[in-house]
Amino acid sequence: MERHIRFSDEDSALVLLDQRYLPTREDDYYCRTVENIIYALQTMVVRGAPAIGVTAAYGCWIAAKEVASSENWKEELKVKLEEIAEARPTAVNLRWGVERMKALWESSQLETIEALMGIWLKEAKIIHKEDIEICKLIGVHGATVIEDGDTIMTHCNAGALATAGYGTALGVVRGAIDAGKKDISVIANETRPFLQGARLTAYELKEDNIPVSVACDNACGLLMRRGMVDKVVVGADRVAANGDAVNKIGTYSVALLAKAHNVPFYVAAPLSTIDRNMPDGDSTPIEDRTPLEVTHVGDTQITPDDVPVFNFAFDPTPNELIAGIVTEVGVLRPPFAESIKKAFEEQGK
Amino acid sequence: MERHIRFSDEDSALVLLDQRYLPTREDDYYCRTVENIIYALQTMVVRGAPAIGVTAAYGCWIAAKEVASSENWKEELKVKLEEIAEARPTAVNLRWGVERMKALWESSQLETIEALMGIWLKEAKIIHKEDIEICKLIGVHGATVIEDGDTIMTHCNAGALATAGYGTALGVVRGAIDAGKKDISVIANETRPFLQGARLTAYELKEDNIPVSVACDNACGLLMRRGMVDKVVVGADRVAANGDAVNKIGTYSVALLAKAHNVPFYVAAPLSTIDRNMPDGDSTPIEDRTPLEVTHVGDTQITPDDVPVFNFAFDPTPNELIAGIVTEVGVLRPPFAESIKKAFEEQGK
Repeated sequence: MERHIRFSDEDSALVLLDQRYLPTREDDYYCRTVENIIYALQTMVVRGAPAIGVTAAYGCWIAAKEVASSENWKEELKVKLEEIAEARPTAVNLRWGVERMKALWESSQLETIEALMGIWLKEAKIIHKEDIEICKLIGVHGATVIEDGDTIMTHCNAGALATAGYGTALGVVRGAIDAGKKDISVIANETRPFLQGARLTAYELKEDNIPVSVACDNACGLLMRRGMVDKVVVGADRVAANGDAVNKIGTYSVALLAKAHNVPFYVAAPLSTIDRNMPDGDSTPIEDRTPLEVTHVGDTQITPDDVPVFNFAFDPTPNELIAGIVTEVGVLRPPFAESIKKAFEEQGK
Repeated sequence: MERHIRFSDEDSALVLLDQRYLPTREDDYYCRTVENIIYALQTMVVRGAPAIGVTAAYGCWIAAKEVASSENWKEELKVKLEEIAEARPTAVNLRWGVERMKALWESSQLETIEALMGIWLKEAKIIHKEDIEICKLIGVHGATVIEDGDTIMTHCNAGALATAGYGTALGVVRGAIDAGKKDISVIANETRPFLQGARLTAYELKEDNIPVSVACDNACGLLMRRGMVDKVVVGADRVAANGDAVNKIGTYSVALLAKAHNVPFYVAAPLSTIDRNMPDGDSTPIEDRTPLEVTHVGDTQITPDDVPVFNFAFDPTPNELIAGIVTEVGVLRPPFAESIKKAFEEQGK
């Protein structure tokens, strides 16, 4: 499943499968302007930390195209890049994508916007392709922690739809199956309020004929109590230097329940999701989203008028609840402050 | 708020505010037959352990009315009473209500159905009235564990709507306010899949001008981590002899998070909800409800076609996570096996 993020050379547009309407409608959303890119990011036409990073990279090219006829293009471009980087606060890959494009601009010292657009489109396509390769490596390493017959619980969607393809948490599932593990199945927590588990994880696993069931987030405790969950694998929007993982709201509850039931809890994320400048999960900015996602499901109003609601989009899971962080360079183990540092050093970063 | 369960002498009907359509529609559902009663119980027109007990009591009278012209009324009535008692498996109050009516029948040794109907209607009205009084006593005792300024999280709806009036968990909230505690507010977990928190708890607290906010069930961990929850108070559908509390699915997660954050977790329930024949929570039957409650919200389909879902309606919270059980005779404290036994002995039961 890779049609959900594709660049159309013909249309000079980033074409996104609109994730707001899955699983019942498969509409494409065309990003031709920076405004489109920011709208797509903020309303979650596209979501998932790695997919956001890829979108950001193409967004830089679209920004360059927008300012190409201006004399002041350098200054205007910098403003637009910052607007893209600030579209959402929690997933570190958004700024990572923009910064990687900016670094290329600075190092290449190209003087014309046409030349910059040329190398940027190539770079965005490289980031896009790399992301799939990274997910597949996460799958290879993740397969080592999965056993025949495992039922794997996941929260939110850290799948193909959250990346350029293959997925991080679902990359581990796919990697295990690709490595020949037998009888692997998935329990997708529905993941209120945006229902990424019910809508997206179930959709993409069903498309791939991987056995999947959906449970309300509330069912997690009983399912674990009954021994129905062998492993938990989730993605992350930002992993702090100490290994705390900031991921979709409710992940922390799942991790605590997993600990109480001796169910190993894994985070699957590329190194680009690890923010070594962030000391811990509690320091990470947590996005506060529109109340409408909580008060309504489709056209159905579920809360009374004028009752305030909370809609924090993420929560931090403390590192002591995490058995391992599955990255493209291997499974990092506690103590994470050390294993993360070592992984970056080995990459020469 | 007591209009949600009322007996209409004029119509010979139990009139229920249809809780499936709150908060956006306030429709009455008239129970004139045993079929209506069972439908109302099973589809959750009425829900909440104490309210189910009251409904069961009136249901016995409606059953008697149905068989009144039959020669075989005694046998037919017994069959109908068993049908009512079996309408839902988890809340012990359903069978408790039916058994109390049956015991009166047996002890009174009345030979005509007309005479039985006479004492049964009185008895149902007594059970109805007693339930409100019991809730108010739960409120009086519950107030002792609440402090000025407390933000109280609750899960599901254990309020007026779940009882004859006043509520159990929300009876503790109302009791605290009635006792003069200042600045009490409530966070209602939305409580997927049936959304009793978002729809019902928010509705009835707003009606009473008690400050309430709604949070997705997933937000519980972050809210506690940020120190935004001072106490948790929930109801129960059945409390086992060892103090394990079986309540709405997801309660167990909340209790575990509360323990991790040193937030006291209370269960509020009448003695009629305590089942001394049930050794522990894990032995309690857990209702498995229709997938439609998970797959759809209103008319909106949220899971792909043909993906299986789990819809267990309850989970057990182990007694070690519970700070106290607030009953009409006082706050029972650990070890619960002893405090429960003592409470019943003092009642001469």
